[in-house]
Amino acid sequence: MKPMDSLALRHDGRRLTILDQTLLPDREVWIEAGDPAAMILHIQRLAVRGAPLIGVAAALSLACMAEAGAAPEALRLAAAGLRAARPTAVNLMWAMDRMGAVLEAGAGALAAEAEAIFAEDVALCEAMARHGAALFGPGEAVLTHCNSGGLATAGIGTALGVIRRAFEAGLVRHVFVDETRPLLQGARLTAWELARLGIPHTLITDSMAAILLRDGQVQRVLVGADRVARNGDFANKVGTYGLAVQARHHGVPFHPVAPGSTVDLACPDGAAIPIELRDPREVRGYAGWRWAAEATPAFNPAFDVTPVGLVTSLVLDRAVLSREALEDGGLASL
Amino acid sequence: MKPMDSLALRHDGRRLTILDQTLLPDREVWIEAGDPAAMILHIQRLAVRGAPLIGVAAALSLACMAEAGAAPEALRLAAAGLRAARPTAVNLMWAMDRMGAVLEAGAGALAAEAEAIFAEDVALCEAMARHGAALFGPGEAVLTHCNSGGLATAGIGTALGVIRRAFEAGLVRHVFVDETRPLLQGARLTAWELARLGIPHTLITDSMAAILLRDGQVQRVLVGADRVARNGDFANKVGTYGLAVQARHHGVPFHPVAPGSTVDLACPDGAAIPIELRDPREVRGYAGWRWAAEATPAFNPAFDVTPVGLVTSLVLDRAVLSREALEDGGLASL
Repeated sequence: MKPMDSLALRHDGRRLTILDQTLLPDREVWIEAGDPAAMILHIQRLAVRGAPLIGVAAALSLACMAEAGAAPEALRLAAAGLRAARPTAVNLMWAMDRMGAVLEAGAGALAAEAEAIFAEDVALCEAMARHGAALFGPGEAVLTHCNSGGLATAGIGTALGVIRRAFEAGLVRHVFVDETRPLLQGARLTAWELARLGIPHTLITDSMAAILLRDGQVQRVLVGADRVARNGDFANKVGTYGLAVQARHHGVPFHPVAPGSTVDLACPDGAAIPIELRDPREVRGYAGWRWAAEATPAFNPAFDVTPVGLVTSLVLDRAVLSREALEDGGLASL
Repeated sequence: MKPMDSLALRHDGRRLTILDQTLLPDREVWIEAGDPAAMILHIQRLAVRGAPLIGVAAALSLACMAEAGAAPEALRLAAAGLRAARPTAVNLMWAMDRMGAVLEAGAGALAAEAEAIFAEDVALCEAMARHGAALFGPGEAVLTHCNSGGLATAGIGTALGVIRRAFEAGLVRHVFVDETRPLLQGARLTAWELARLGIPHTLITDSMAAILLRDGQVQRVLVGADRVARNGDFANKVGTYGLAVQARHHGVPFHPVAPGSTVDLACPDGAAIPIELRDPREVRGYAGWRWAAEATPAFNPAFDVTPVGLVTSLVLDRAVLSREALEDGGLASL
């Protein structure tokens, strides 16, 4: 395959490696990921994560397997395993469906398709950033949740890509970052990306967002999405729905940002999006650390659904759709 | 002094000790706390915490110092230091003002006053529980934030005391507990108390409360308070304001619970309540553990203010005051 290089994923022409995101920000460890069986585990334990990126990563690992000479039936099984690795982000299913459609044409076709998915994701990020930056006035402070940057895509990111380009254009002066319990993608990943980019930022606990919105310290909320339903409802990291309620209560614009690969026109509304339930241990502590008693029962949905009614506008790679446009079926007719 | 015994504070007639709450739930370590200089540090590092309890604990440590033969001037200085240990909870100031008023009468008077403050707090908790339990229908699920139980008072607690008595009366069937970042009092302390009491409970991250409220899984939200202003605005653990907004958005009743010692009639409204800002390291990790990069800027207000407009009713030891009663000056005329 062609060399490909992103913040969290590399193919040097021979080997596919991923940056193990569970070890960030303190350790930058790259691990082999050319085997779909290993990739499934990497996706499930969030070593590689972000709705667009897991689609790209799954496609590349399948292409590696094909280049190593795997038979079509083995590739078909691997694709099915990858497709089911996590249930909420639709990009994984979208990427596997694209790969499945060219599977019969052989290893070369799979490699070309995976390369195309990678390159398209890079371009989609820039297109979202172009559309999204048009929303901003000069010098805004922005709040974001989870990680939707270079660690979540093959390119500059979805919501964080918009923020990055808007910062470079003088339209963003500060970014507030929700830490994003339980897996702390905001504290570990988004803060790390913003520091690398030299963008001024402040980390808060998720519970502090409301007072920043109340006090006029935030002019806009931008978040990524794991699946956008046909009516504009969308799933994203747990806590997004609460943030949308806070934004509405305080009159602050709220924008999900997503590429076309995240839109699932087969999904009529948010109620039809499956929500991944994860290990309760993730709520009792973090990584190897535990602070709640071992026996404490905990609830751990990885995502929640925000209804289109709380969306100011959805930033896509092809357009920005207002709530009204979304409610009028804008996604289906795009 | 008389022997006194609570979940988190003991005086055996000779020595005052506190349960070090920073080590819960895994370790139950009791530490000496008869010296006001040590007590100030215990209060600041949250080894002893909870608005009512820090008032009681401060009073008892001052009485211990008096019994050990300290001079009035030294006691006056110690009382001033204790009074200023944390700025938001008014109970500390209220207790020190009571102790100050009897200081001239000598050690015996201080001991009797501290014993009275302890005994009154126990009784206030039961009175709040009696009034609060009248709010419930049968078999409700309740959501609470932070810790407002036996670890936050000398008695059964404020909000958690209400929940406990309501559970015993069959009026509560389940308690959802916000973990309460950054210091995790919900995960560590409230879950521990509920397990001891045999009350069914589920731990969630703060960011998950919104979806429980949306899905009708919670019939009522109860929280403690660190200071209630004359107009009914109140300060409580950071995250309480956001929870009040969520409760309002979803039409779920929201009740702060506080004893008279938490009401500050000299404070006209929430804007006049000082909010303690704590070390940003508390947001970058927890205790000795850090997950955000060392250099990540973080914001760490320990409390936030909820306006009376978001309160369904305030449960006091003397009465339950509705939002309307609070807005009509009910606290001043109680």
